[in-house]
Amino acid sequence: MEGQAAFIYTLNNDTICALATPPGTAAIAVVRISGKDTFAIIDRFFYPAKKIDSVTEAESHKLLFGTIKDEHGELLDEVLVSVFKKPHSYTGEDAIEISCHGSVFIQQQLLELLMNNGARLAEPGEFTMRAFSNGKFDLAQAEAVGDLIASHSKTSHELAMQQMRGGYSDKMKALRKQLLDFASLIELELDFAEEDVEFANREELKKLLSYIKKEISSLIESFSVGNVLKKGIPVTIIGEPNVGKSTLLNALLNEEKAIVSEIPGTTRDMVEDSISIDGVTFRFIDTAGLRDSSDSVEAIGIERTHEQIKKARIILYLFDIRTTDCDEIQKKLQEFEAVISDPAKKFILVANKIDELAEIPHHFSKMVELDCVFISAKRKENLKLVTDHLLKAVDVKNISESTVVSNARHYHELQKVLEAINSVEQAFKQDIPSDLIAIDIRTALYHLGEITGEVTTDELLGNIFGNFCIGK
Amino acid sequence: MEGQAAFIYTLNNDTICALATPPGTAAIAVVRISGKDTFAIIDRFFYPAKKIDSVTEAESHKLLFGTIKDEHGELLDEVLVSVFKKPHSYTGEDAIEISCHGSVFIQQQLLELLMNNGARLAEPGEFTMRAFSNGKFDLAQAEAVGDLIASHSKTSHELAMQQMRGGYSDKMKALRKQLLDFASLIELELDFAEEDVEFANREELKKLLSYIKKEISSLIESFSVGNVLKKGIPVTIIGEPNVGKSTLLNALLNEEKAIVSEIPGTTRDMVEDSISIDGVTFRFIDTAGLRDSSDSVEAIGIERTHEQIKKARIILYLFDIRTTDCDEIQKKLQEFEAVISDPAKKFILVANKIDELAEIPHHFSKMVELDCVFISAKRKENLKLVTDHLLKAVDVKNISESTVVSNARHYHELQKVLEAINSVEQAFKQDIPSDLIAIDIRTALYHLGEITGEVTTDELLGNIFGNFCIGK
Repeated sequence: MEGQAAFIYTLNNDTICALATPPGTAAIAVVRISGKDTFAIIDRFFYPAKKIDSVTEAESHKLLFGTIKDEHGELLDEVLVSVFKKPHSYTGEDAIEISCHGSVFIQQQLLELLMNNGARLAEPGEFTMRAFSNGKFDLAQAEAVGDLIASHSKTSHELAMQQMRGGYSDKMKALRKQLLDFASLIELELDFAEEDVEFANREELKKLLSYIKKEISSLIESFSVGNVLKKGIPVTIIGEPNVGKSTLLNALLNEEKAIVSEIPGTTRDMVEDSISIDGVTFRFIDTAGLRDSSDSVEAIGIERTHEQIKKARIILYLFDIRTTDCDEIQKKLQEFEAVISDPAKKFILVANKIDELAEIPHHFSKMVELDCVFISAKRKENLKLVTDHLLKAVDVKNISESTVVSNARHYHELQKVLEAINSVEQAFKQDIPSDLIAIDIRTALYHLGEITGEVTTDELLGNIFGNFCIGK
Repeated sequence: MEGQAAFIYTLNNDTICALATPPGTAAIAVVRISGKDTFAIIDRFFYPAKKIDSVTEAESHKLLFGTIKDEHGELLDEVLVSVFKKPHSYTGEDAIEISCHGSVFIQQQLLELLMNNGARLAEPGEFTMRAFSNGKFDLAQAEAVGDLIASHSKTSHELAMQQMRGGYSDKMKALRKQLLDFASLIELELDFAEEDVEFANREELKKLLSYIKKEISSLIESFSVGNVLKKGIPVTIIGEPNVGKSTLLNALLNEEKAIVSEIPGTTRDMVEDSISIDGVTFRFIDTAGLRDSSDSVEAIGIERTHEQIKKARIILYLFDIRTTDCDEIQKKLQEFEAVISDPAKKFILVANKIDELAEIPHHFSKMVELDCVFISAKRKENLKLVTDHLLKAVDVKNISESTVVSNARHYHELQKVLEAINSVEQAFKQDIPSDLIAIDIRTALYHLGEITGEVTTDELLGNIFGNFCIGK
């Protein structure tokens, strides 16, 4: 593993630069440089306002004001240079950040100047990859940086932050260390195969395996929650034609958009048909039909409804209060529940169009028992009740307190670890020779190591960092 | 004037915050805070990694690494805080810049946190207005900051930079000072009107007026150049239908776009139909027709052509080398020149479709005298000759060495100064009483002062800073 990390680090021992802020015009933009020639390059073009300061001589974590002039001595901009001395930088290398005026022309000229003078444009995620290579954090933490930047809701932000600050990396490393010790002992036995010694205590190993299995299984289980929290909890709205499904969807979405656009300059690039309630993202699935049709042309095919229910975690069952027979609803609910056996799925009953009636009919009293919500989507009445029910259906508090896997790669690695551990256990039961057991233990070690980056391959790193933005 | 500036400063004595980088997702984003409570606010939420550091206690121009936690102690982000102690900041006030992870969620939460705790979202240009109010730079320099950020070409960037670094502000201030001294003397005379004294030396004043007039006139004249350099030099392509006007336009535009998109993340938000050659922007006017029609349906109405020529500074006269009679071209050129008397307008003769001929016909030898360019727009042959001719027609070198007014507001103020100075001169000739002369001198002083901001009104400041982006 060390060979791998060293290889990658050697490969990229040069100086890289990139725009770290979003492209476009603004008050300021930040260009980031990292690598061994950082200070030498910048000192050629940066003229500090105070004579005592040069970037090479400056202390770490100092801000220097001055001008950038190009090769021909022409003034490009007045800038602030942030100095980070190795190893006290994000990457662990000598690094600077140039805060320049945010004109696209200046950003471009500055990058060109650096690129013409020994720096190379960074690959996506290359700054973070260097941070990983230099031991600033492990692979799971590095991945969390990417997740953090992409977070659009409180929950996905929290998950990423938890992982970036350490998360379950320490637990993985500890488990791996213990397993590695056993693996060494078993491999030692193989060297003394003729003598039939047993260095590794089999009972201890079995205990460890069962412990690892429990820990890994619980992390694997947490993924179904972690993944939906990260991507948004899938919700579907079902109901007969004309009960107001699209009106309800639009009302929920508009509510959100109004909140979001309050702060100028931070309009979020919203995922279509998602709303964030108290930091939890709910993602409406199969809504294309709702939007296009005005409900009326749509036939509620049982098959399609079942499909929607299958994909959703929460099902909003909407009906028109004027035309609905309560017994019918109850029958339908039972029908659904019989088909969908997953207890994690929640139904929310919503009676719409209360604005059309003077009062709620008596026969609806039994609906109250079913925790039915009475609303007017058209007049946006009682929408808060719907969002409250959505939140209740998730029970976020319990989730945020436990360790949750939200990264699909980790989930797959954990599954492979579990598979290998199962094989080891099986092998013990069947009295399989130690050399074969050793192979399975190595497989478990390999996949545990791939989560934290104790084991890396070029392909793995490429897959992870290739999805980062340039400048990170 | 001091009353005005003080009023504005008092009015905005609070603490402001804004996103300083472009909206969107990236590696990092920068949130800027300025005002008296800056450090008190940030110290409530920022937890420096090193115990010795607090923002209030920190030295100016230090970078502090740490975490931001919200009111409930929940971790929002790991950030770098740049500390600027009054008066050593952009605004001249206590200020910080928070460099956070560039997720839209974090940007938004951070701004909300600041806004809920005593900071106010800054108005457009408010940071720069505070810099002006605190004497960090004069009004012309403040305006240049806005121009600098909006610059898309080398020339407009240079003009803005020149102005930001002082430009003709010093000259304006010196002229105003001298004139102010005379005004005081003349007004003193008015106090002693009964005694018929003359404190102000009339000959000296006349000399000064003539000097000011010369300086102001030359600046006014420079505007026609400065303005086109800033906005782009207007170019029009004229020619008979089917000679390849749209093909040439597209070829020129594509050339530019290819260069621009080389550096990822810095794609410029191009002004439609503009190209930048060696830092000079050329703006093609009346090209809608060229693009929409495939040349063929368009009739070359003499009237429309004259209209195009009137607006342009450079006229590309394109013709089909296969179907053109040289005498006809010469005749047409003379015709144009008779109509358009402005010697600043340049004609560039371009013979197109050389790819259709084996060689250039002999009778074109006389076209060479007219500096005609032979190209194939379709095959993009000799396009460099066209761009060379465009550059030659502007003669940029001479321009960049002289002081140039590129700001329309300054141009109008200068015209008003000139008008007032002319009135004063006229008044002297006509022996008009001193009190009336004093009024005209005051008018000149007022408009000179409005350029540098020695005289300001709320309306003036609103007009200038209202056009800035938020965060600057």
